[in-house]
Amino acid sequence: MPLTELKNAVLEANLATVQHGLVIATFGNASGIDRGAGRVVIKPSGVPYDQMTAEAMVVTDLNGQVLDNRLRASSDLGTHLALYRAFPEIGSVIHTHSTFATIMAQAMVPIPPFGTTHADYFRGEIPVTRPLTPDETGADYVEATGAVIVETFRGRDPLDVPAVLVAGHGPFVWGRTPEEATLNALILEEVARMAWHAMMLRPALQPIATHLLDRHFLRKHGADATYGQPS
Amino acid sequence: MPLTELKNAVLEANLATVQHGLVIATFGNASGIDRGAGRVVIKPSGVPYDQMTAEAMVVTDLNGQVLDNRLRASSDLGTHLALYRAFPEIGSVIHTHSTFATIMAQAMVPIPPFGTTHADYFRGEIPVTRPLTPDETGADYVEATGAVIVETFRGRDPLDVPAVLVAGHGPFVWGRTPEEATLNALILEEVARMAWHAMMLRPALQPIATHLLDRHFLRKHGADATYGQPS
Amino acid sequence: MPLTELKNAVLEANLATVQHGLVIATFGNASGIDRGAGRVVIKPSGVPYDQMTAEAMVVTDLNGQVLDNRLRASSDLGTHLALYRAFPEIGSVIHTHSTFATIMAQAMVPIPPFGTTHADYFRGEIPVTRPLTPDETGADYVEATGAVIVETFRGRDPLDVPAVLVAGHGPFVWGRTPEEATLNALILEEVARMAWHAMMLRPALQPIATHLLDRHFLRKHGADATYGQPS
Amino acid sequence: MPLTELKNAVLEANLATVQHGLVIATFGNASGIDRGAGRVVIKPSGVPYDQMTAEAMVVTDLNGQVLDNRLRASSDLGTHLALYRAFPEIGSVIHTHSTFATIMAQAMVPIPPFGTTHADYFRGEIPVTRPLTPDETGADYVEATGAVIVETFRGRDPLDVPAVLVAGHGPFVWGRTPEEATLNALILEEVARMAWHAMMLRPALQPIATHLLDRHFLRKHGADATYGQPS
Repeated sequence: MPLTELKNAVLEANLATVQHGLVIATFGNASGIDRGAGRVVIKPSGVPYDQMTAEAMVVTDLNGQVLDNRLRASSDLGTHLALYRAFPEIGSVIHTHSTFATIMAQAMVPIPPFGTTHADYFRGEIPVTRPLTPDETGADYVEATGAVIVETFRGRDPLDVPAVLVAGHGPFVWGRTPEEATLNALILEEVARMAWHAMMLRPALQPIATHLLDRHFLRKHGADATYGQPS
Repeated sequence: MPLTELKNAVLEANLATVQHGLVIATFGNASGIDRGAGRVVIKPSGVPYDQMTAEAMVVTDLNGQVLDNRLRASSDLGTHLALYRAFPEIGSVIHTHSTFATIMAQAMVPIPPFGTTHADYFRGEIPVTRPLTPDETGADYVEATGAVIVETFRGRDPLDVPAVLVAGHGPFVWGRTPEEATLNALILEEVARMAWHAMMLRPALQPIATHLLDRHFLRKHGADATYGQPS
Repeated sequence: MPLTELKNAVLEANLATVQHGLVIATFGNASGIDRGAGRVVIKPSGVPYDQMTAEAMVVTDLNGQVLDNRLRASSDLGTHLALYRAFPEIGSVIHTHSTFATIMAQAMVPIPPFGTTHADYFRGEIPVTRPLTPDETGADYVEATGAVIVETFRGRDPLDVPAVLVAGHGPFVWGRTPEEATLNALILEEVARMAWHAMMLRPALQPIATHLLDRHFLRKHGADATYGQPS
Repeated sequence: MPLTELKNAVLEANLATVQHGLVIATFGNASGIDRGAGRVVIKPSGVPYDQMTAEAMVVTDLNGQVLDNRLRASSDLGTHLALYRAFPEIGSVIHTHSTFATIMAQAMVPIPPFGTTHADYFRGEIPVTRPLTPDETGADYVEATGAVIVETFRGRDPLDVPAVLVAGHGPFVWGRTPEEATLNALILEEVARMAWHAMMLRPALQPIATHLLDRHFLRKHGADATYGQPS
């Protein structure tokens, strides 16, 4: 994939988070990776969204070495890199402070699969990380945030549940492509909103049955997917 | 009715669900039926709303036989067909995952008629289906969803309460025309939003009196309707 | 005042309720009165807002005699007229089903003055009417709605608290002019939204002190008002 | 700084509160100060936002003496001046009735730092003032509002937590520049919204750890800030 194409896709993912109301101010950041070339493209730090261009995207390698150093990379770069190194299946990471996903992250309440909207995109509960220790909040804070996410997903397929709530912080979301990660970020916010309201009305509400969860997830994902047009 | 006209009306109904904020991503689907010709027109599966045209609408018969097979029909086609076969009074079906109607479906709490906004369009409580069994969530899942809706309405006039909440899933709404079904989908979301908030503030709140419910419903529906301009 | 001017002002008030998100579909209606000429101008019934013109406004006298009969008047005309007859100080009435004001009307919970946003426009609690009896919900239902509002304001100055919540229905709001009634409808929705959330967080919350309530109300209303530019 | 530049910046801050949905009607007011020239620029009272120009901004000295008297200054001028006199570090003050910040002010519940969205801009709990006494609600009400804010911040750095909730009223926010105060007003509303929802779901929720709070605040503020592009 040409670098220009990846830069454009990452720019679009960043702009889409604003268009979908998932970020305010300069919060949030999206990245993408070209696994073959070993290049990561990420939003620059603190640049207003309405002045952002594909050229402004920062290029690094998987260790965070900046290959194109006009602008400083997003301050969350280290978290993105930790996820790319640990989850070889993923091609894009998005971080937002979207309202309801962040509320659940602040309350440290995982999002149970209460309905098929959730099941269409996430095959089970969206987990919350443990809080970071004082040591983890030091110089390597951003990398430690990545490590605690990876710890949370030990033994799980990150594409089954492509999102996590970092305790006291907010959501990180991923996908095979920037387009898929963008969609997952949008759906996460909606299922967080719905879960918050459903839990408030019925505090003892149970998740949907596994047969319904799987039926919906597998309709949209995997070898037997029947949703959408044949490709 | 010419097929072109029905396709346009179904397209408009699909686009209206987006304009009214009732669907995100490619969720949701609207259909219409020409009873005389035995033709059903429905949204194609997984096509972005901003690229949708009247020509992209898929035409089938009442058994789901596709009569125009360029695009795959909405994955919920089987539910729409079950409703058309069981409810001869209806001419259009709309399925959304609109936020508050879906919250109530997830919480499995029916929507009581708490006010005249509800009574203007729905003559009584909007019911929730029972959850589907593992068997019903198999190969014929979509048809079974239709069957459980029909079961919920046994002995009831589907035009008195033109909406249902499928447990753990979301709302299906209908009407005599695509325009009417669109309006019912919009009002359903608003009455679900209001009911959620009213129940949270006053958990023991009772529905409005039957005399007020009927007064409002019959002002807009039936032979003695006085709302709007004489036709 | 020329009738054309009143028609324009009433049209603007109707359109403003849509622009402010206070009505959906064809819900809601605004009217104005020329006291000198004894003419009331009101929205026609069931006409889509995006097709509404000043010419479409319906003109009646204070008894509801239509003086310009091209279109049928709003089905709530009788309530507006009852208010104009009982409250000689008012020049405009607006009825909406705005979300939070309607939630409070459905829950039959009056809106206490919890803050200065409320106090700037309403000098005290916004009351809820009693529910209408079966008899009052008959042929003269719309007039009875007006009568129960007037009953609720017995002994009160309708310009001190220019709004009411009709139990199980929604808000009616008024003012000296269509512009003022529009503003009151907008503020009412906001104070209802705030009050719902404040009550949920602190169920035993008390209203602000009378000295603060009066300080704010009188800053914007009455002979000693200091808000805005000198006229 | 030329006065024209300050007027433009204050106009922009006022308009931004509308664009960000922080004010309705003619609520809200933003001001800025040129410390060298001893001149304060503030919104005029009661002028519709869509008719507001830089020239309409009112110029006063630090005692409220109007130096350009075409229009009456915002009725909250006295509060702004009290803050400028007490907090020499600040260059701009913004007052809004933004929904969730006002709800918390009405409920008299301080906003704890539940997450990093809060910590990025506010180094600790956003406090609520005590209610004003009847005496303080007299002729010098506006100045007394300023005094009670200053009292609340005794012994605290106003740039560590650049916002306060005035009990039963709403938020006042500040910053070194109108741009910074605008951003603080926007973030305040978002953290108030999140805190309200997090508290409703988990009433006993505790603030984030001090090490996380400081880590985020100092990433964006102070000598060792690493967020954004090098200036």
